[in-house]
Amino acid sequence: MYTTLSRYLPILSWGREYTRSDLGNDLTAAFIVTIMLIPQSLAYALLAGLPAEAGLYASIVPIMLYAVFGTSRSLAVGPVAVVSLMTAAALSNIVEQGTMGYAVAALSLAGLSGVILLAMGLFRLGFVANFLSHPVIAGFITASGLIIAASQLKHIFGINADGHNLLELVISLGSNLGGINWITALIGVLATGFLFWVRKGLKPLLTKIGFGAGVTGFLVKLGPIVVVVATTAAVWHWGLDARGVRIVGEVPQSLPPFTLPSFSPALLGQLLLPAFLISIIGFVESISVAQTLAAKKRQRIDPDQELIGLGAANIGASLTGGFPVTGGFSRSVVNFDAGAATPAAGAFTAVGLAIAAVALTPLIYFLPIATLAATIIVAVLSLVDFSILKRSWTYNRGDFAAVATTILLTLALGVEAGISAGVLLSVLLHLYRSSKPHIAEVGQVPGTEHFRNILRHDVITHPSIVTLRVDESLYFANARWLEDQIQSRVAGDKAVRHVILQCSAINEIDFSALESLEAINERLHEMGVQLHLSEVKGPVMDRLNEQHFLHQLSGKVFLSQYEAVHKILAA
Amino acid sequence: MYTTLSRYLPILSWGREYTRSDLGNDLTAAFIVTIMLIPQSLAYALLAGLPAEAGLYASIVPIMLYAVFGTSRSLAVGPVAVVSLMTAAALSNIVEQGTMGYAVAALSLAGLSGVILLAMGLFRLGFVANFLSHPVIAGFITASGLIIAASQLKHIFGINADGHNLLELVISLGSNLGGINWITALIGVLATGFLFWVRKGLKPLLTKIGFGAGVTGFLVKLGPIVVVVATTAAVWHWGLDARGVRIVGEVPQSLPPFTLPSFSPALLGQLLLPAFLISIIGFVESISVAQTLAAKKRQRIDPDQELIGLGAANIGASLTGGFPVTGGFSRSVVNFDAGAATPAAGAFTAVGLAIAAVALTPLIYFLPIATLAATIIVAVLSLVDFSILKRSWTYNRGDFAAVATTILLTLALGVEAGISAGVLLSVLLHLYRSSKPHIAEVGQVPGTEHFRNILRHDVITHPSIVTLRVDESLYFANARWLEDQIQSRVAGDKAVRHVILQCSAINEIDFSALESLEAINERLHEMGVQLHLSEVKGPVMDRLNEQHFLHQLSGKVFLSQYEAVHKILAA
Repeated sequence: MYTTLSRYLPILSWGREYTRSDLGNDLTAAFIVTIMLIPQSLAYALLAGLPAEAGLYASIVPIMLYAVFGTSRSLAVGPVAVVSLMTAAALSNIVEQGTMGYAVAALSLAGLSGVILLAMGLFRLGFVANFLSHPVIAGFITASGLIIAASQLKHIFGINADGHNLLELVISLGSNLGGINWITALIGVLATGFLFWVRKGLKPLLTKIGFGAGVTGFLVKLGPIVVVVATTAAVWHWGLDARGVRIVGEVPQSLPPFTLPSFSPALLGQLLLPAFLISIIGFVESISVAQTLAAKKRQRIDPDQELIGLGAANIGASLTGGFPVTGGFSRSVVNFDAGAATPAAGAFTAVGLAIAAVALTPLIYFLPIATLAATIIVAVLSLVDFSILKRSWTYNRGDFAAVATTILLTLALGVEAGISAGVLLSVLLHLYRSSKPHIAEVGQVPGTEHFRNILRHDVITHPSIVTLRVDESLYFANARWLEDQIQSRVAGDKAVRHVILQCSAINEIDFSALESLEAINERLHEMGVQLHLSEVKGPVMDRLNEQHFLHQLSGKVFLSQYEAVHKILAA
Repeated sequence: MYTTLSRYLPILSWGREYTRSDLGNDLTAAFIVTIMLIPQSLAYALLAGLPAEAGLYASIVPIMLYAVFGTSRSLAVGPVAVVSLMTAAALSNIVEQGTMGYAVAALSLAGLSGVILLAMGLFRLGFVANFLSHPVIAGFITASGLIIAASQLKHIFGINADGHNLLELVISLGSNLGGINWITALIGVLATGFLFWVRKGLKPLLTKIGFGAGVTGFLVKLGPIVVVVATTAAVWHWGLDARGVRIVGEVPQSLPPFTLPSFSPALLGQLLLPAFLISIIGFVESISVAQTLAAKKRQRIDPDQELIGLGAANIGASLTGGFPVTGGFSRSVVNFDAGAATPAAGAFTAVGLAIAAVALTPLIYFLPIATLAATIIVAVLSLVDFSILKRSWTYNRGDFAAVATTILLTLALGVEAGISAGVLLSVLLHLYRSSKPHIAEVGQVPGTEHFRNILRHDVITHPSIVTLRVDESLYFANARWLEDQIQSRVAGDKAVRHVILQCSAINEIDFSALESLEAINERLHEMGVQLHLSEVKGPVMDRLNEQHFLHQLSGKVFLSQYEAVHKILAA
């Protein structure tokens, strides 16, 4: 009973062993992550098309729930760039941004996504995420990063622009460029430039001056806060909001409110596919970070329990004024580096953000939207990495095709079309590849009991015996193909009396393939040719043993290929 | 040049070697097949919702075109039951049966299907048909047979009824049962009973009396003709058409007319998916028969050229008043058994049917629809075979699930939903299975260089070395799962210093899996564990050799598992 409970409530395991030193580490990590998260969560709310405070709310209760249900000791949960973009894309197809309905739909999206994640965890369906191949994810994230950056340019320049793919955005930006607000543009460009410099220039500089890695890391993390404070002060001091600089404005000074998502079936129906895609993308992003960090401390991540943790976090977000959340890469790394020892660090971060929501919100009244846009742009451009195109090209053209399609369609049609096409294409390519597997006609290497490809090696063969080795499991997609191959090999060669299938690389034979083997056996029999099998694996043989096929087989099953040829020739 | 031409025009190969004995054989076969096809083609036109003559037209030019382009020497092309049902299902969603638009839409469907088949043949996309697993096809054909039989009951009883799935049909039949025409019902039931008796009772009887197999076979094949003649005579003699017995009526006395399908984009758009499904199902049915028959004479079938042959046949059907056609099972077997030596037999059959279309159509004026319905029912009930449920159950639960789903959904929702769901489910099940492959921790069998599963055998292991053998190619669907497995095996076991992946069953490593291996290597390195590979296959090694991975690998690549353990322990 206890073990079952602690499987679903990992807090019971680590909570019992919590020490004073853990507490110190967790508090330090929480402090650093809180400072980092304040501007980030405001900015991602903006990206999702929601009021700034939604970002804070989405970071408080979800983090606490993940601390109770999650298995990673370092993962920091909250709004992240790609999921926020997907949220905006899903919602603006349905309701108008800025309306009350939009915020409620965001709650529904988070709730639906939470239920999907929870159900996948309880039914152990985490494998569904495996359909996202690495190159497809890499391509999707790169393309999303570009779209996000482009979508923020309007805030940098203080103009209006709209669109959910790169083309729409660029056209919209171009046609509205006349309305540029030069003061906003100055703030936006300076903020972006400064944040880039902090990332690329400040760190080497501080290291060169002689600061330690810890201090350097902390100072670099202060960059966004410095920009926020400086630009807010500038707007306040010179009254720039009166001159057209858009600001965050009034933010309620409150803890996360209790909210209820809409349960309208029509709305939920429209949100189902986006919620599913958001769940899967969020889960994949989260689990990759969690596993990478866990490995460094030889800890274990339970993927199904992670789904439950993320599901609880999203349901929490939907009940407290938030929007879809997941485990973020950069914040989790910061949390880990800052020494977070347990999920309690997350809980302390939540407390820090709650204090910010209650006490600090009046201070961000004058914060320019352009500053938030600058933090987003600098954060997402680090996601853009076209090297995946080159790397997949050199390895495998099929993988390259999947990445290229994902990137192009995401940029051209938007996130949902892009990721769906990528998944579909990679599945089809996999099936295509395994539908025409490598097949070798083999012969005996002289002086050994080894059999190798007759095209690559000088081997001994016998005119009456053809041995084929199929380098793939036999299943419906290649079963008929195997029939073709064997028939075309044997049809023209009157000398052939025996066909041996060397089954060393066959890990499974499904029902279609079994029927194809029966057909092959039957057809070869009609031609006066015997079919033999050699080196059949244990689990495959177990299954065949229960079937008629082995009785119908015109030839025999041999333990080894050597034995097969030896005994057939002796007979 | 000549070989290229004769690849696309197989007639050039067999035509040059045509002998007088071939001619005799082909003429005999053509005569028998013609007698069989006259009632059958009328009946299938009825099933497709078209006037009876469309069945004759669909059997003339298509057969001739297949004779020129097809590679099978025995295949008989024309309307078949399942494709006719699919035609009716596709068209009645769009246009009303009995209208001119319906017949034109049938031409468009045949034309579209022909273009799809032709394109698949030219681009060598025949592998697409492999996505239909054997159990899914078997289930689909069984369910279609039931629907077809149910759809003909209204003709047997002379009532009106409609529907494209079993439920709709049964409800519609039940509610219209009051309008039964008793004379029609008498004809229908007697005809059905007689045809069943011919199949099940007459054959044993004739054999018992002492007739040879050839004569018996011919007499049995006359059964449908006898019923057609007898019931037509009865209707004519007693004037039963005036008493409510529906008859074929006026049939134009003509060769196939030249017709043009509609090219309306809206119509073609609606027909695209049905045309695709009809093409695939038709191709699979046709190629299975062709290969079975070819094997008996050690001949070869070229699947891609078969697509071209069937494509040409369907385009021919669309230009000559027909509807979608394919190679039929029973007629091809009859053709083969009757001694057809070359595709010329098909051409002679076409001539026979053309004569029938010109000369015999007045004779079928009084042919009752109920008789045609009876021939359909008897023909399709031989397709119904639920044993696939039991056979797949004993072999593999996943295959069973795919069959059961296909049967249920075809019966409940119709042919298109049923076959689509079956294909989707079998692909998902395959991916699911290969996403959690068999993985064995192996040890050395004492006294040998063999390594086997530690759970099944008494083997030698070393606490510092863990060897895992994955029985599946590594690709995106199982890449992350492998990460989990290795991490969970190593995380808790502090003694482990080396992990060896025995790669003997790994036929491919895709880009996702390569990245997972990099991640595994990196994470194991963080834990102070080395990763080694053993028994990597040639093609897989070729690919890895071009990548950074082998440089990053913390351990080594060993030729054999034995060498791996030996050298690691010695180091």
